Amino acid sequence: MTEQLRTDGSLRHLLTLETLTRSHIERLLERAQTFVRPLGQRPPRSRALEGATVANLFTEPSTRTRVSFELAAKRLGATVVQLEVQLSSRAKGESMLDTVYTLQALHVDALVIRDAEVGVPGLVAAHVAPHVSVLSGGEAHVSHPTQGLLDALTVYQRKQRFAGLAVAIVGDIRHSRVARSAFHAFSKLGVTDLRIAAPTALMPERAEFAGCTRHTQLEEALGGADVVMMLRIQRERMNEADLPQGERYFAAWGLTRERLALARGDAIVMHPQPMNRGIEIASDVADGPQSVIRDQVRNGVAVRMAVLAEVLAAGPA
Amino acid sequence: MTEQLRTDGSLRHLLTLETLTRSHIERLLERAQTFVRPLGQRPPRSRALEGATVANLFTEPSTRTRVSFELAAKRLGATVVQLEVQLSSRAKGESMLDTVYTLQALHVDALVIRDAEVGVPGLVAAHVAPHVSVLSGGEAHVSHPTQGLLDALTVYQRKQRFAGLAVAIVGDIRHSRVARSAFHAFSKLGVTDLRIAAPTALMPERAEFAGCTRHTQLEEALGGADVVMMLRIQRERMNEADLPQGERYFAAWGLTRERLALARGDAIVMHPQPMNRGIEIASDVADGPQSVIRDQVRNGVAVRMAVLAEVLAAGPA
Amino acid sequence: MTEQLRTDGSLRHLLTLETLTRSHIERLLERAQTFVRPLGQRPPRSRALEGATVANLFTEPSTRTRVSFELAAKRLGATVVQLEVQLSSRAKGESMLDTVYTLQALHVDALVIRDAEVGVPGLVAAHVAPHVSVLSGGEAHVSHPTQGLLDALTVYQRKQRFAGLAVAIVGDIRHSRVARSAFHAFSKLGVTDLRIAAPTALMPERAEFAGCTRHTQLEEALGGADVVMMLRIQRERMNEADLPQGERYFAAWGLTRERLALARGDAIVMHPQPMNRGIEIASDVADGPQSVIRDQVRNGVAVRMAVLAEVLAAGPA
Repeated sequence: MTEQLRTDGSLRHLLTLETLTRSHIERLLERAQTFVRPLGQRPPRSRALEGATVANLFTEPSTRTRVSFELAAKRLGATVVQLEVQLSSRAKGESMLDTVYTLQALHVDALVIRDAEVGVPGLVAAHVAPHVSVLSGGEAHVSHPTQGLLDALTVYQRKQRFAGLAVAIVGDIRHSRVARSAFHAFSKLGVTDLRIAAPTALMPERAEFAGCTRHTQLEEALGGADVVMMLRIQRERMNEADLPQGERYFAAWGLTRERLALARGDAIVMHPQPMNRGIEIASDVADGPQSVIRDQVRNGVAVRMAVLAEVLAAGPA
Repeated sequence: MTEQLRTDGSLRHLLTLETLTRSHIERLLERAQTFVRPLGQRPPRSRALEGATVANLFTEPSTRTRVSFELAAKRLGATVVQLEVQLSSRAKGESMLDTVYTLQALHVDALVIRDAEVGVPGLVAAHVAPHVSVLSGGEAHVSHPTQGLLDALTVYQRKQRFAGLAVAIVGDIRHSRVARSAFHAFSKLGVTDLRIAAPTALMPERAEFAGCTRHTQLEEALGGADVVMMLRIQRERMNEADLPQGERYFAAWGLTRERLALARGDAIVMHPQPMNRGIEIASDVADGPQSVIRDQVRNGVAVRMAVLAEVLAAGPA
Repeated sequence: MTEQLRTDGSLRHLLTLETLTRSHIERLLERAQTFVRPLGQRPPRSRALEGATVANLFTEPSTRTRVSFELAAKRLGATVVQLEVQLSSRAKGESMLDTVYTLQALHVDALVIRDAEVGVPGLVAAHVAPHVSVLSGGEAHVSHPTQGLLDALTVYQRKQRFAGLAVAIVGDIRHSRVARSAFHAFSKLGVTDLRIAAPTALMPERAEFAGCTRHTQLEEALGGADVVMMLRIQRERMNEADLPQGERYFAAWGLTRERLALARGDAIVMHPQPMNRGIEIASDVADGPQSVIRDQVRNGVAVRMAVLAEVLAAGPA
């Protein structure tokens, strides 16, 4: 496991939330909050990262996350380059590292990497020069740390606490990096009533979500929940045979108004997007008063600004 | 129809010229003219839109218009992001709006949308938050408002008036958003002798170009014209059977020097590009002394700067 | 041949090093050296080119060179646009020039062009307006002038001289624009012992590398060399029948530690990348103490900054 921290305790890489301390996560959230503005106000801008160069390496299509990182970096004054290189370690072996060394030699300070293959961001982080940072923009099914941070920030904005909350994560947990990073964030931040709910085929190994209660009935997981986090069906990570039929899935697992009524009256509804409306979530719930889905997007830029500001602050002279 | 204006009368969206007043169009042209510089001088730059974010959403390939909007925004200090999302309402239904809401939550202030499907820019405009603007970068065959403005500006630069001009629009009128926006601009600005000339198969419905004279012989339309606007054969919007053969089309409809001689001696020749040389226009005419085709390109950036400056001026605090 | 210089002797276009004087090349290298910073320091930034617009037109995929030019331009304050137009003269004829005239009318000041076809950068340079510059980012097999400059700068940094050096260029010389530009640079700069080594099928015409010794045995070329420049096997420019088998090629032509020992003890190893490790070069050599491959990448940005600064300095008012 690549060490994510510098010797002074500051963040160098962000590959997973799993090894961050609670206070470190809290510090990142506090900093992110300073970058949040209401919709309709101009976002904050600064020159804090002027002179720094951020490379976005996205090998999976991801308009949302790619643009979110791009805007976070630009609004802090950094220079951003977009690359469409394939970093897959299978496909290219050492040539993956040649690409990374090339970017480093171009004075790139931070590499944002999204890859469908497990271990690529960590492998890159293990090889870059000491002044270079690697940020995961989503790693296979295992980790999506900035998503975990933005989810935590969204909950905190609405609930002003983590302790005592009941959080239900619902859907395709097995294939979801969003679920894993949310689990890490919420556990660390003190959520003790953490529930995962999925059909058996989409339920993860028990050890991965230690301490969570497991539910194979949606209604059971929703009862009295403060936070309902719906996941996207990850069609692209499933075998054909495992793929639930849309309508049948919705009948058993779709979040409807009726089901949402089982949660607390002030429960919030989250979704990492893109949504399969009518499959995992009903449209009137997605667009309803309890939905904080658009807040999640807005918070995503703020969280990425906070992360970039921390990893690049101690940058080169 | 989505309202394009704010309550103070300023432009919020630009989807069509059809509902703008003459004085509004004139104001935009005057402002655009302040951004025009001769070739070989550096274009004007300002920080007027610093802090604003413009997203370019082009679903049809369009190097020219995309780069023109990109440079217009950057030269006013805005941040620009490029997206390759599909906004088609057919393909994705509500997920189109999810993409738009996401961009909005990323604090995007203006969406420039080019789409092959009728109604997409208007649909988006009808759903975005009050502080967000939608600019059409070309909508199916129906509208290309910044093209209409740049065409009007180009004519005005050479003729210093619209009243009393004879303007001939020639070619594939039926499939042309350029022709429609030019028709709207020129009609509003006081051109009374407006002629459309096309083979019968490429002639539009009469109601769409009310007040224009209709010509199925090119020579007839050119007689005494001050402005000859040639259109591109829109191969991609035609059935195979409707597609004119290049040589046969040129024989009847290509603008040659001989035919141009039928127009006034100081007539100007326009084309929105890309040109099919030897099909709708002879190369020596395209590159000849009466051609203002490159002026059109230069004016395109100026017009887009004027539009962005107006829609984003009243921007968020 | 398009004239590359302005009447005051300054660089206007950069298409080839072949017609530059030694002192001009030296001046570019000196200027480039001022932009070099050690890895881990922030690269220099200035506003020297603020207001200038650079268009990157890359029709062959080239992450490395494209990003290198992009960062060079941005770090000098220029605005950069990326285009994916096809400039091939075969495919489009005059429409290639229409694209160029369009970019010119958009107030683009420099076009960086990479094309697989011989003559395209020169053809464009012959047609642009007097204030517009054309920079080759790699032209077929014939020229890659900024690569030649960065190679020369890399040698000079390590050897502090060119006179008296023995330089061996090894591999697929026939298809290599890198070899041709290196040959031009090194010859002009005073390298007299210049060796080209290739299997017969990959050996170029004698006239193209006049004054070089020719070697069909690698060992012969390496003896006492100060600089060993390995080339990439250009699979994409070979007929299937000419393509050497990887293992067999490595056996005869791969640079191993054993073979490198034939060169001087302080010989440096260069490669333009991307490397086919295990085909033209052994991994332990590529990553070994004599390798300056990453310096080449870093120097690439510096050289492109120097070139952009010179061609755009005398820019529009």
